[in-house]
Amino acid sequence: MAHFMNRKDDMVTEAIDGAIAASGGALSRLDGYPHIRVVVRSDWDKSRVALVSGGGSGHEPAHAGFVGKGMLTAAVCGDIFASPSVDAVLAGILSVTGSAGCLLIVKNYTGDRLNFGLAAERARAFGLRVEMVVVDDDIALPDLPQARGVAGTLFVHKIAGALAEQGADLAQVAKAATRVINGTRSIGMSLDTCTVPGSPKEHRIAAGKAELGLGIHGEAGVEQIAFPSAQQAMAIVAGRLAATMTEGRHVVLLNNLGGVSVLEMSVLANEITQSALAGSVDLMVGPASMMTSLDMRGFSVSVYALGDGDADSLAATTTAPGWPGCVALTPPTVLPLPDGLAPIKAMPSPHDATKAFLTDCCELLITAEADLNALDAKTGDGDTGSTLAGAARALIGAMDTLPLADHTQLYRAIGQELSQTMGGSSGVLLAIFFAAAGDASSAGMPMRDALIAGLERMQQIGGANLGDRTMVDALAPALDALGTGLGTAAQAARQGADHTATLTKANAGRAAYINAEQLTGHVDPGAEAVARLFEHLAG
Amino acid sequence: MAHFMNRKDDMVTEAIDGAIAASGGALSRLDGYPHIRVVVRSDWDKSRVALVSGGGSGHEPAHAGFVGKGMLTAAVCGDIFASPSVDAVLAGILSVTGSAGCLLIVKNYTGDRLNFGLAAERARAFGLRVEMVVVDDDIALPDLPQARGVAGTLFVHKIAGALAEQGADLAQVAKAATRVINGTRSIGMSLDTCTVPGSPKEHRIAAGKAELGLGIHGEAGVEQIAFPSAQQAMAIVAGRLAATMTEGRHVVLLNNLGGVSVLEMSVLANEITQSALAGSVDLMVGPASMMTSLDMRGFSVSVYALGDGDADSLAATTTAPGWPGCVALTPPTVLPLPDGLAPIKAMPSPHDATKAFLTDCCELLITAEADLNALDAKTGDGDTGSTLAGAARALIGAMDTLPLADHTQLYRAIGQELSQTMGGSSGVLLAIFFAAAGDASSAGMPMRDALIAGLERMQQIGGANLGDRTMVDALAPALDALGTGLGTAAQAARQGADHTATLTKANAGRAAYINAEQLTGHVDPGAEAVARLFEHLAG
Repeated sequence: MAHFMNRKDDMVTEAIDGAIAASGGALSRLDGYPHIRVVVRSDWDKSRVALVSGGGSGHEPAHAGFVGKGMLTAAVCGDIFASPSVDAVLAGILSVTGSAGCLLIVKNYTGDRLNFGLAAERARAFGLRVEMVVVDDDIALPDLPQARGVAGTLFVHKIAGALAEQGADLAQVAKAATRVINGTRSIGMSLDTCTVPGSPKEHRIAAGKAELGLGIHGEAGVEQIAFPSAQQAMAIVAGRLAATMTEGRHVVLLNNLGGVSVLEMSVLANEITQSALAGSVDLMVGPASMMTSLDMRGFSVSVYALGDGDADSLAATTTAPGWPGCVALTPPTVLPLPDGLAPIKAMPSPHDATKAFLTDCCELLITAEADLNALDAKTGDGDTGSTLAGAARALIGAMDTLPLADHTQLYRAIGQELSQTMGGSSGVLLAIFFAAAGDASSAGMPMRDALIAGLERMQQIGGANLGDRTMVDALAPALDALGTGLGTAAQAARQGADHTATLTKANAGRAAYINAEQLTGHVDPGAEAVARLFEHLAG
Repeated sequence: MAHFMNRKDDMVTEAIDGAIAASGGALSRLDGYPHIRVVVRSDWDKSRVALVSGGGSGHEPAHAGFVGKGMLTAAVCGDIFASPSVDAVLAGILSVTGSAGCLLIVKNYTGDRLNFGLAAERARAFGLRVEMVVVDDDIALPDLPQARGVAGTLFVHKIAGALAEQGADLAQVAKAATRVINGTRSIGMSLDTCTVPGSPKEHRIAAGKAELGLGIHGEAGVEQIAFPSAQQAMAIVAGRLAATMTEGRHVVLLNNLGGVSVLEMSVLANEITQSALAGSVDLMVGPASMMTSLDMRGFSVSVYALGDGDADSLAATTTAPGWPGCVALTPPTVLPLPDGLAPIKAMPSPHDATKAFLTDCCELLITAEADLNALDAKTGDGDTGSTLAGAARALIGAMDTLPLADHTQLYRAIGQELSQTMGGSSGVLLAIFFAAAGDASSAGMPMRDALIAGLERMQQIGGANLGDRTMVDALAPALDALGTGLGTAAQAARQGADHTATLTKANAGRAAYINAEQLTGHVDPGAEAVARLFEHLAG
């Protein structure tokens, strides 16, 4: 699968430059490309304990995304899934470490331990105070004494970072980091492998399966399990974590391994609140991409038993762009639905003339059903006649429930009736037409002006202009001409309708996707219906 | 492809509940499940103009993720890629609109226009002041009068949201929203189609191709183009945008369509700074997932010509969790590499006894090469002897460059020599051993204590404990016994080495992945080397 990259060898430096560009000046880098790729806080003055982390790339936003006030001071970036060199780590340490010293936060992978470890020795030979902690939060392999370091590392970055920012000394920061490491557990699950740039994709996980307990470098999970649902996936993950958890209150971190949609991550967040973890979790970080494995379609969950002050440290301000914040898990607030969703039915009121007029219009449309369907069949799906006739029949049926004596209410009532019985775009558009005409009428406009206001609103919402081959082409000129009588209006409507047969381009409405040859010579059925209506009324 | 979901019909409501759970109480919802899915700001008091947006789901964090102080007041969520119902939109409007009125921000898709449009009419019938704007920022189809609304909508949410938060009236907010819509252009590109939950994946884009000008509902792009590199992809996108851009300063928004790794998004951010856009862009939003199309492996770029006050509105505080912030695009700061990366070579100093001692040790290791290789072949890759002999030969070769007369400097110099010539984990570990011993020696420790300090540091970094089948099993007892003489030390080393043949589990080092049967009866070659060294020295 292709990636958004240029040369593979340039990918990490280009990505770092992109992250720096998107930081608004908050991040800088050392002048060590291509081999020394160190991102540092631009505002760092060495007055406090420096925090340096890093490792292979491919885990973005880790590690550069967690550089900032209140988190890391520097991130040392290796090649994709490969440890940075001793020189690169040493450059990072030397560039940010002052008299307060430096804490290295290393995830438990052999290469990182060794390279960070030797760099620490070299830095100490310069007289710098350097401590190193190794994060081993992964519980996927319970018997392995060398558990991997994965997304739980974020807790270490955040809590140690907050303390360092507050001015704690190196011993205090290192002690807190060790405490967090000892209290943190993580496990991951994925539906697919990650795609390493420049390498063929490994299809290892069959459909219907998931891998449980995977690392963040594409290594296989501890086991493949059946994957029936998000709920059961989270139940397994939560169960593994719960079995290792101590008493007390916890923070949970939900990490996107890179390729899971935001929609799905929210589903998983919801599952956490329904899981075995829910009872012992007070705080939540994520869901977010924090410690990724390129584009892996998986997630990991980390938990940490909160000690004194940890909640404050997790909530403390940071400028690190990758930190999504830490919030209290509280029961959701569900607000009552507002009144007024069920439209208030206006009181029926009789009015013989209006009833006769409306019935007459409806009967005309029922009569025209076959003609209009035939016209629509030339340029559309052949149902305009039936749609209008169906609405007309429904309106006749509802006639005695309408507020016939109150024209303002009547417009709105007709709109409601049409939106319920007619369906589709045209039903909604006519409902908008009548509702807006009702509004205008209630504001005191005379009938013609109210209908023009309705037309304008319908055009605004529907997007149809004159010449777009819709009913507007007949209705707009008819309403314009209505001031000088129904006869002129009918003439204008007919002229407008006939003109649609010459329009070879439909920009709106149902004929917008038909080509010119199919359209030529055929009157738009909606415009035809309007013309017939006005002709009948004028007749 | 499987998704992290349960029943497809529950996916949207579960995702909304997850987003609300992860909001720390900032978001609430209406009690309208399953059909009415409206997310609202928990702190809303109706004192200002309400902003309501929404549309189909599958675009997360849009739209619920942009609900918060300074952005949307409510988000109305439809099914995946389907417009919410008129009733749902109406519920959203009614629940948040006070006397200041409400602005609906709608992306230009027919269903959304109609349903939001009719809901607006219904709300107006209640006497509420409701305005509606339609976003049409997509330039993929230049001839289409009905351009789609895509990620540029974020500019509208943010700028209108900031003004509403500041107390602007409805006319001002609507005017600003219209101005932003008129000045915004977007276009997207993808390497693959999105996967709709419950539907088979459409494989539409061949390898080596990309689709340009796609919408956010899985609809095909306007054209398929060759995809040679991120640079050329961005050149095409930037070229299309630049052709439509006006004079003046712009903000650019880089949107992840859902499935692109964070690493690649940073590469694309870097490309923007190298593209035709760079000269006219002052501000940047993203890269981030803002208006996604489920898991689509694509991106979109939006640009907006900044008007008066827009930069402030974009920078204004918001609590909306999906907004990634807006930063100035400034040239990156590149800091000089720190001094000290090239290790300071200690001055050579002659010392015949030390030279003889070291040479003797080295020659022993050279003699043992074949034996140690044979031992390693039983439990590893058979090169321990060659690795140690190679390092010994190199040390003999470098003997006259070493500070032989200064033991503190000598430890460090040997460490450096080994880390450069020996390679691999064992080279780094021995370098750490000698560097730490040097530090201890410089702090005034006698030789045996300095060596023990070196061992401790090596164990800390390497993770090997006694009994883990490594050289530590011989070295640790030897150094312990060294206080009572070389003879005791040699006995202890031999005993420790022989004991490794009975250890059936290797927890660290190269034998950690070999099973018990293969290990039994074989002495660890590293421990054997240590034992032979001490035996020779005692001899």
